[in-house]
Amino acid sequence: MLTPPSNDISAISAALTSGDLGQLIYDRAANIFPICRSITGIGVRNTLQQLGQIIPIAQRHIPSGTKLYDWIVPDEWTFREAYIADVAGRRLVDASNNNLHVLNYSASVNAIITRDELATHIHTLKSQPDLIPYRTSYYVRAWGFCLSQQQWDALPPGPFHVVIDTTHTPGHLSYGEYIHHGDTFEEVLLSAHICHPSLANDNCSGLAVLTTLAERMQTIRTRYTYRFVFAPGTIGALAWLSQNEQQLARIIAGLTVSCVGDAGGPNYKKSRRGNTLIDRAMSHACRTASPRPEISEFSPYGYDERQYCSPGFNLPVGSFQRSKWGQFPEYHTSADNLNFIRPQHLAESARTIAQTIDILEDNWCPISLSPKGEPQLGQRGLYVTSPTGDTTAVDANMASLWVLNLADGAHSILDMAERSNLSFTVLASAAARLKAAGLLAAYAPPSTALKRQRRRFKIKPDQPK
Amino acid sequence: MLTPPSNDISAISAALTSGDLGQLIYDRAANIFPICRSITGIGVRNTLQQLGQIIPIAQRHIPSGTKLYDWIVPDEWTFREAYIADVAGRRLVDASNNNLHVLNYSASVNAIITRDELATHIHTLKSQPDLIPYRTSYYVRAWGFCLSQQQWDALPPGPFHVVIDTTHTPGHLSYGEYIHHGDTFEEVLLSAHICHPSLANDNCSGLAVLTTLAERMQTIRTRYTYRFVFAPGTIGALAWLSQNEQQLARIIAGLTVSCVGDAGGPNYKKSRRGNTLIDRAMSHACRTASPRPEISEFSPYGYDERQYCSPGFNLPVGSFQRSKWGQFPEYHTSADNLNFIRPQHLAESARTIAQTIDILEDNWCPISLSPKGEPQLGQRGLYVTSPTGDTTAVDANMASLWVLNLADGAHSILDMAERSNLSFTVLASAAARLKAAGLLAAYAPPSTALKRQRRRFKIKPDQPK
Amino acid sequence: MLTPPSNDISAISAALTSGDLGQLIYDRAANIFPICRSITGIGVRNTLQQLGQIIPIAQRHIPSGTKLYDWIVPDEWTFREAYIADVAGRRLVDASNNNLHVLNYSASVNAIITRDELATHIHTLKSQPDLIPYRTSYYVRAWGFCLSQQQWDALPPGPFHVVIDTTHTPGHLSYGEYIHHGDTFEEVLLSAHICHPSLANDNCSGLAVLTTLAERMQTIRTRYTYRFVFAPGTIGALAWLSQNEQQLARIIAGLTVSCVGDAGGPNYKKSRRGNTLIDRAMSHACRTASPRPEISEFSPYGYDERQYCSPGFNLPVGSFQRSKWGQFPEYHTSADNLNFIRPQHLAESARTIAQTIDILEDNWCPISLSPKGEPQLGQRGLYVTSPTGDTTAVDANMASLWVLNLADGAHSILDMAERSNLSFTVLASAAARLKAAGLLAAYAPPSTALKRQRRRFKIKPDQPK
Repeated sequence: MLTPPSNDISAISAALTSGDLGQLIYDRAANIFPICRSITGIGVRNTLQQLGQIIPIAQRHIPSGTKLYDWIVPDEWTFREAYIADVAGRRLVDASNNNLHVLNYSASVNAIITRDELATHIHTLKSQPDLIPYRTSYYVRAWGFCLSQQQWDALPPGPFHVVIDTTHTPGHLSYGEYIHHGDTFEEVLLSAHICHPSLANDNCSGLAVLTTLAERMQTIRTRYTYRFVFAPGTIGALAWLSQNEQQLARIIAGLTVSCVGDAGGPNYKKSRRGNTLIDRAMSHACRTASPRPEISEFSPYGYDERQYCSPGFNLPVGSFQRSKWGQFPEYHTSADNLNFIRPQHLAESARTIAQTIDILEDNWCPISLSPKGEPQLGQRGLYVTSPTGDTTAVDANMASLWVLNLADGAHSILDMAERSNLSFTVLASAAARLKAAGLLAAYAPPSTALKRQRRRFKIKPDQPK
Repeated sequence: MLTPPSNDISAISAALTSGDLGQLIYDRAANIFPICRSITGIGVRNTLQQLGQIIPIAQRHIPSGTKLYDWIVPDEWTFREAYIADVAGRRLVDASNNNLHVLNYSASVNAIITRDELATHIHTLKSQPDLIPYRTSYYVRAWGFCLSQQQWDALPPGPFHVVIDTTHTPGHLSYGEYIHHGDTFEEVLLSAHICHPSLANDNCSGLAVLTTLAERMQTIRTRYTYRFVFAPGTIGALAWLSQNEQQLARIIAGLTVSCVGDAGGPNYKKSRRGNTLIDRAMSHACRTASPRPEISEFSPYGYDERQYCSPGFNLPVGSFQRSKWGQFPEYHTSADNLNFIRPQHLAESARTIAQTIDILEDNWCPISLSPKGEPQLGQRGLYVTSPTGDTTAVDANMASLWVLNLADGAHSILDMAERSNLSFTVLASAAARLKAAGLLAAYAPPSTALKRQRRRFKIKPDQPK
Repeated sequence: MLTPPSNDISAISAALTSGDLGQLIYDRAANIFPICRSITGIGVRNTLQQLGQIIPIAQRHIPSGTKLYDWIVPDEWTFREAYIADVAGRRLVDASNNNLHVLNYSASVNAIITRDELATHIHTLKSQPDLIPYRTSYYVRAWGFCLSQQQWDALPPGPFHVVIDTTHTPGHLSYGEYIHHGDTFEEVLLSAHICHPSLANDNCSGLAVLTTLAERMQTIRTRYTYRFVFAPGTIGALAWLSQNEQQLARIIAGLTVSCVGDAGGPNYKKSRRGNTLIDRAMSHACRTASPRPEISEFSPYGYDERQYCSPGFNLPVGSFQRSKWGQFPEYHTSADNLNFIRPQHLAESARTIAQTIDILEDNWCPISLSPKGEPQLGQRGLYVTSPTGDTTAVDANMASLWVLNLADGAHSILDMAERSNLSFTVLASAAARLKAAGLLAAYAPPSTALKRQRRRFKIKPDQPK
């Protein structure tokens, strides 16, 4: 029983129109691409600091050894250098060229070893011989190098001097959080993982898109509160969940965002609950963005929706991507670089999320003040006229009729969009016109709705914003 | 929890078999075709009088200026003549040849004007240059002519003497109503608009089909009361609604009927509620009539179902057509004439509505008196035998098995038809045979059902029929 | 709210792996093929005796004249011989060659008649001139012979000496019952008709498959009680129903089994209720067995599911076949012989039923003991690793994630299988591994469930097994 938006229709989408949005997001992704991130350590904090120049991101730090449900915060990983040299000291493979070369979270080593010994510590991709794979060893202590198969084949017979200079010491797991306060305490969670090193699509793209969206939303008054979370995969999401467990009831919708810079998709995977507001809004936005979006049912594999949707939380959180993880050949290889993501795809991803947010913001349940028969639209100048064949005017007029017909307080604008096959924006605009003409009212006044929420969330009225 | 029909199965359909039904309906449509109708005025009353020679239609008159929800009854339009002449007085275009030539509800004019001036008052169809369009200007006062593009191009350079002799004076909005009383106070609404001038399919066809149906039903005892309404589009439907608002709860089903004389369809558009009795009965009848009927969901555009299904009424009223309005090239042009409609299509439309009514009338919820195991059909002579390959006998026997299997008081014959994919008629016949053999009973005796209805509708038992 | 299985996963399927299952079932079908069965008489009892050498089948006998709902137990039919001879005494057609030659349940005759007279007592199949049809006349007293059209055409002009030596005398209707006792009083009904003479697929196949399944289950402890019923069609099922009416509430699932030896299908027809446990389990088993199983909705024609699903009982009983009755050319002809059924098809049918039983047995509703976030599978050695491209390991790991994600006490393993598109077996195995690792618990302890059942069925705890 939502109330009409207090702002302009499509305000978030409108905020994305200025400047070269795609290039801006691309540059921001490029900026954080070189940083060697892992689930803990300086890489995450450096990335949060970079993004923090755009929006004021708060860093949270959880000490190593903290129990997070079934998991324990691991030691911090400090990476200094990693290389394979010949005995003459010539560096044959060097992680300073590409930080994928070092097994992520690798243990230290400094030894002269044979090629056979080295082979047991080498990761390659036989099927993609020119690409370096991305490999991690977070929860089993091991050392290793990742090479393209061609590099490995081209190495001399050895012996080799292998050096990995890392330390694992008690420290902190870090994640970032930025909150856009809205008129209500109901929250929308927008989450991207921040633990991958130099991989552009997975997911510098997600971090750059969400940060830019947050920046553009800053001056816009919203109904909902938006919480942006940039946390290391799995353990970071669990950290955030454990820190916010008392307030999870506020989350009315959420998205994990990753792989949003390539040419594929759009792809939306629904939440475990399957037909929540975010599932419907995101499906509608993807259908608007593309004639052939892939909307799939929940499955318990992918990104941090695995944690958000675990049965003990069961939050309404879906997952947005362009190409699906694991289903593009560049996935988790050195080919997922800055050539793989493109400004226009980043911009389109940002716009699709913005439209989703606009749907959340602009949705309401009108009641017709003239419910018996159709009101006279012509007399009120509410019929849009236009040159023959202009489908915009046809859609606008059909939208007015749909809104009036379903304006019984039991249908939201999103309900109307799903039933009429018209776009949410066209229907929301029609509803705004009809409301301005005195033909519609909201089902419940905002004050009541707010009181209800305050009661529900046990929050004092003076608190935020 | 319906009781068995007190009459023969398929009584309404049977009443349509005598005589050349198609030709009869066609002649009646042809009879009223020449009348120049509009939303008010003598044209509507003349049409009602013509149809009133077939069945006793009551005329209702609502004074101009009466407020009908968001609308006001307009003045009566009296049309005398309209022509374009040259300055020598030779009539070049004359509405006495085709009443589409005058803009419907046109203001008066009598002037000598140039071709350029005239051009701003001319309506043509560039894409169909040989056809006269049908145009109205009900709620904006204007004058105008409708010509084929060829006529317009062939007119001399002018100047022209243009004459439209009409008056708009306070009078009445008229509509007609005919009631076929049934055993119960539950009503079925059958509605056709009556405001279009010489257009045959849209919808002299609807008026002629419904009038003929009403005529043939006269001698038949029915369970439900049938209310036939012939009213001008929109304003007429609103007038009827406003006059009957206290009794709308009686309407258990309804149809708007139009464009039922051409070769297309059948088309059925469901009511706003979407799965009511009329929606199911009409869908079944259309599927029986045609291998490829178009059954579509409700949309708030079309005929007077827009008003009946507005949220303040939300009546279970669907819309029956052959070709859909606006989707055949003859729509709202001079090509929608008596050549466009054919006797066989009119007859088929009448039969499809009759079958729908038969479904309403013959539907009931049997209870098996031998529910444990199948009763012995063979011993009772209830197995229909026949030459090999006769699907009628196969269907009849399967129908008996379906009826007995679902005769638990919770399934109506229509439920059984939907579940079994057999025709309603075959199942209703099987149920009648099984009831006659003492194998079925009705769930609730008629007296109880009647009492319930009287209570519901707050009506005294002695009232109608 | 089921509890975990007390036994191994897939125990019933495992019990079918030893020996040449297909040949064993085939031999058993072949064994009973020659017996001349009818709805009453020695043929049924001889068949039950043969099958009784495999498992201890109890024979039940209902006297002729007993009223069974709408039916009455008919007299016993004793068949001695039937032949058509020429006047010289040479036997031209002899039922000792094929017991289909005698009209089943035929009256006696001993007469010299003309070919014309004989013709009115002859049944042939014009469309399949080389096959003898199978015909019965249970409830109308008549005598007759069934011949191939070719045999009939080849007979001399006559006259003929026709002899059918049968008697119809008061006796009993017999059926067999074998009970496999389980831990609970909830029962699964497995039923095959036993009244057809020498027809291999319809349905020596069903009798042989069910008997062999019962034999192999003997040593296995089960959750449910399994009741195998071998009864003459219709009247036999009604007899069983009438004898067991007080205990029908125990039946939680059931199957009729027939035509399970040919190369078609598998086919599963759902119960009247349509979405019960057996419907879901059998559908899943058929989908596992075949890429294109035919799963159809209930219809009140076929085998004894007609009786079990009649509205007065409405038991959750479906029907399992390979080729559907009536839809293979060999149906009810002499071509439905021992060449038509094959060991591998019989074995596959047995395995599909066994998998269905395993689904019933192994189904339960787990609750995650670590519901917040995913538990660490790697640390517990619960990730199955394998060579690249091994989908078994991929499925096993996905199964673990699905089970943990849906382990909220509201989803059974079968629910999970339907939602994940993984096989029940893989999910049940994953659930067993996770339970062994202490990550899952059952929703309700077995003791409670048992108490609930005892209350429901009003049975004292000391009773069976």
